[in-house]
Amino acid sequence: MDRLIIFDTTLRDGEQSPGASMTREEKLRIAKQLERLRVDVIEAGFAASSNGDFEAVRSIANSIKDSTVCSLARANDKDIGRAAEALAGCENRRIHTFIATSPLHMEKKLRMSPEQVHEQARLAVRFARQFTDNIEFSPEDGYRSEPDFLCRVLETVIAEGATTINIPDTVGYAVPELYGEFIANLRRRIPNSDKAIWSVHCHNDLGMAVANSLAGVKIGGARQVECTVNGLGERAGNCSLEEVVMAVKTRRDYFALEVGVDTGHLVPASKLVSGITGFVVQPNKAVVGANAFAHASGIHQDGVLKARDTYEIMRAEDVGWVANKIVLGKLSGRNAFKQRVQELGIPVESESEMNAAFAKFKELADRKAEIFDEDIQSLFSDEAVTPHSEYFRLVSLAQHSETGERPHARIVFVIGDREVTAESDGNGPVDASLRAIEGEVKSGSELLLYSVNAITTGTESQGEVTVRLGRAGRIVNGVGADPDIVAASAKAYLSALNKLYTTTERLNPQTSMTP
Amino acid sequence: MDRLIIFDTTLRDGEQSPGASMTREEKLRIAKQLERLRVDVIEAGFAASSNGDFEAVRSIANSIKDSTVCSLARANDKDIGRAAEALAGCENRRIHTFIATSPLHMEKKLRMSPEQVHEQARLAVRFARQFTDNIEFSPEDGYRSEPDFLCRVLETVIAEGATTINIPDTVGYAVPELYGEFIANLRRRIPNSDKAIWSVHCHNDLGMAVANSLAGVKIGGARQVECTVNGLGERAGNCSLEEVVMAVKTRRDYFALEVGVDTGHLVPASKLVSGITGFVVQPNKAVVGANAFAHASGIHQDGVLKARDTYEIMRAEDVGWVANKIVLGKLSGRNAFKQRVQELGIPVESESEMNAAFAKFKELADRKAEIFDEDIQSLFSDEAVTPHSEYFRLVSLAQHSETGERPHARIVFVIGDREVTAESDGNGPVDASLRAIEGEVKSGSELLLYSVNAITTGTESQGEVTVRLGRAGRIVNGVGADPDIVAASAKAYLSALNKLYTTTERLNPQTSMTP
Repeated sequence: MDRLIIFDTTLRDGEQSPGASMTREEKLRIAKQLERLRVDVIEAGFAASSNGDFEAVRSIANSIKDSTVCSLARANDKDIGRAAEALAGCENRRIHTFIATSPLHMEKKLRMSPEQVHEQARLAVRFARQFTDNIEFSPEDGYRSEPDFLCRVLETVIAEGATTINIPDTVGYAVPELYGEFIANLRRRIPNSDKAIWSVHCHNDLGMAVANSLAGVKIGGARQVECTVNGLGERAGNCSLEEVVMAVKTRRDYFALEVGVDTGHLVPASKLVSGITGFVVQPNKAVVGANAFAHASGIHQDGVLKARDTYEIMRAEDVGWVANKIVLGKLSGRNAFKQRVQELGIPVESESEMNAAFAKFKELADRKAEIFDEDIQSLFSDEAVTPHSEYFRLVSLAQHSETGERPHARIVFVIGDREVTAESDGNGPVDASLRAIEGEVKSGSELLLYSVNAITTGTESQGEVTVRLGRAGRIVNGVGADPDIVAASAKAYLSALNKLYTTTERLNPQTSMTP
Repeated sequence: MDRLIIFDTTLRDGEQSPGASMTREEKLRIAKQLERLRVDVIEAGFAASSNGDFEAVRSIANSIKDSTVCSLARANDKDIGRAAEALAGCENRRIHTFIATSPLHMEKKLRMSPEQVHEQARLAVRFARQFTDNIEFSPEDGYRSEPDFLCRVLETVIAEGATTINIPDTVGYAVPELYGEFIANLRRRIPNSDKAIWSVHCHNDLGMAVANSLAGVKIGGARQVECTVNGLGERAGNCSLEEVVMAVKTRRDYFALEVGVDTGHLVPASKLVSGITGFVVQPNKAVVGANAFAHASGIHQDGVLKARDTYEIMRAEDVGWVANKIVLGKLSGRNAFKQRVQELGIPVESESEMNAAFAKFKELADRKAEIFDEDIQSLFSDEAVTPHSEYFRLVSLAQHSETGERPHARIVFVIGDREVTAESDGNGPVDASLRAIEGEVKSGSELLLYSVNAITTGTESQGEVTVRLGRAGRIVNGVGADPDIVAASAKAYLSALNKLYTTTERLNPQTSMTP
């Protein structure tokens, strides 16, 4: 049976989504989860876009063994050189170079003639060959490009040694049967088309990214799909990894393709990406949404359970949904905790990380009688456990609100090695708390997003708060968890400030010049 | 040019999603928004499923003029009679009757032979003809039915007078080209197929509901699409109305079909449904997600703005995105408020509703300097403005939390005509507040969902909280808005209790026996 290559670009095209920018540590954690998922290729970033992204690609290239690691690069020597440098420590590496080929993009964005574009594509692939034999080429906005011109460019880059040819539907304009035929036609017309693996890269602006990708595979003969966890990506996002993988597996009768992904890690991957980026997954999202499987929604109804075969074409367990179990409490020891962490497949880098998480677990168990799997997972999402710098740290918080009075908060927190006490009132206790911190720190940042997730259901829930701050074009997310929603908010704000004040952090490139 | 009929089933199949159950007033508000959207057919409910749903269908049938109003009915006289009764006040009415035709469903669920099913379908359509000429028939799980048998059943019901034939992909198993061919094949084989309009009804379990629907239209020749706002629906939901409509409009070059929907109301419709059900819309959702249009995400970047044509195939304004404008403040008078409400297209039923909203506006403006359009919209989402019964009502709240102490809340609220004071501690101030209320009311309900949306961004945001309670199989949502998140939570909890204690409320049918 033919094999379908799963190329994940959560860390590159996904991250390009406004507000989804990640730190190096966060990208590394996601990369490791992608390796556990057994995706074939991880596009780790766009090395030339910033020093932060260069470092992220490098640390992923140095850590990942089972997946190919890839960096994006514009079709010029400088970008390709930076990509090669970042990937040098990795045995299975790929350079992915691109240039726009549609009339609109060549004229408006590149201000280059078609012949200049053609020549630059040739030179880029030739240059990249110095560093690796594994080269992917993307004609950006390929689906809106003129077919005769596109055939000439692609024939050239294959002759120069490009081993994967990717046809992006950059603006999400395609319809399945047309997109499939477009690729089939290119493959028919280009004499050396059989020397490369063909790839699809679809955006979801009209809600058809998954179907378009699969038409590119079935009708067009592509054997690589570019996708992201949760369909993360600019605008309406990219083709959703979990959907495309489960479609190929569920409809194996039709697609007749092998996929290497270990689907049992799909839901944990979804939760990890959603937690880090603050992008919620809607309950009615296929595969990874809370309601995607009737019996996983917390509502058990006889009818649904009885008729499970009649209404479900996939099994929740197969994609990594686990029952919401009470596993641990106040009296659980370190061994019980460690064992459960291992059962949940949470990667722990070091004993000191495990110790830090256990300390947080004990603290939480003092305040919350029942500790669920989700609580344990959240302990590890909490910034404080990861080796991330803690320049700002919450010491204590007191807040009060009463009808008819202005809500008020008093917060003690650490700035560097200095403990400060800040007070403020506000529209609500959360507003007062964030104002108290901001009044002391004076970061001048703008609050772009404030979102709350209950980690488990029930009144005993912990709250997990994501705060997104923007300052001078830079965007960071902070996450904080606490049974007290006001404290969780203060923690999230301080976590975001830690990122804002870490100088090695990358700028979100937002280049608007990538496929 | 041919016309594509948009059949919205948000109020029937969408509502069937666990946790999305709505009150009669909420359904009526959504129906009016659907009428403003100019959808062709509104499936208002499943009249025979409960008295609550019967009343909801009846009030929608009596209020809606510009769209056809439809009720679902199983293929039996009792169901069809109830549907007819509920629809009696409506000139443009449709009865939609269904019975399962797949081997699995006939055997496991219906325990009927194919010939019994065939006969029951015939009798049902014949009976329905007594009440209207506008009859839709759905063979449930049609896509997994045996084609020869399906052809016989459909030929019969068309001969009996069914005017619309809908082919549901009940379990979301289809792939576009196969589904399109399946319908084309039925239409070719059934001698009287041209006497009916063909319809598609797709579920999104593999992420392809929109593409499958459109393949049913383009390849199969269907001329009606069944869909829901935000793709609301069981499991991964239904075909998303906004996506299918925008795909047909954006790719008019390919589909060559007219759609009557007024797309400028799509985003308000999305917000209304999301607010009422508590089902969030993920930021990377096509068309109505907060990031769907780069410049609507709150982040303005030169590159994106300059290259707007190069990256956007639709315009945000065309689907109802409006700039986040500061419109009103503390000093704004009733006329300014009323004018803005009208500009926003918010339906106001009566002067007393306007007065109640204005009073709430003044109260809010006392606590929040800048009032945004979203704040105004939320005033009208607030239960208190709608004529919904207020058996439980918040009077005042005081809460306090401090590191190292147990959070505590004291709440004064009204139960019927009695004012009570309740106190409790809890894991956090929200938990303490809800426990205080529950300790007094003793509803015995389970908290199934607690979710917070910031209505606008910035630290001054109001919080909107949705609380979902379940008790004895009954599920209700309550919504509360307040700049103080703890107060918003208490309001939401009381709002949910109001619904739980309203005896005329429907049960969420969760029948697992509908297409």
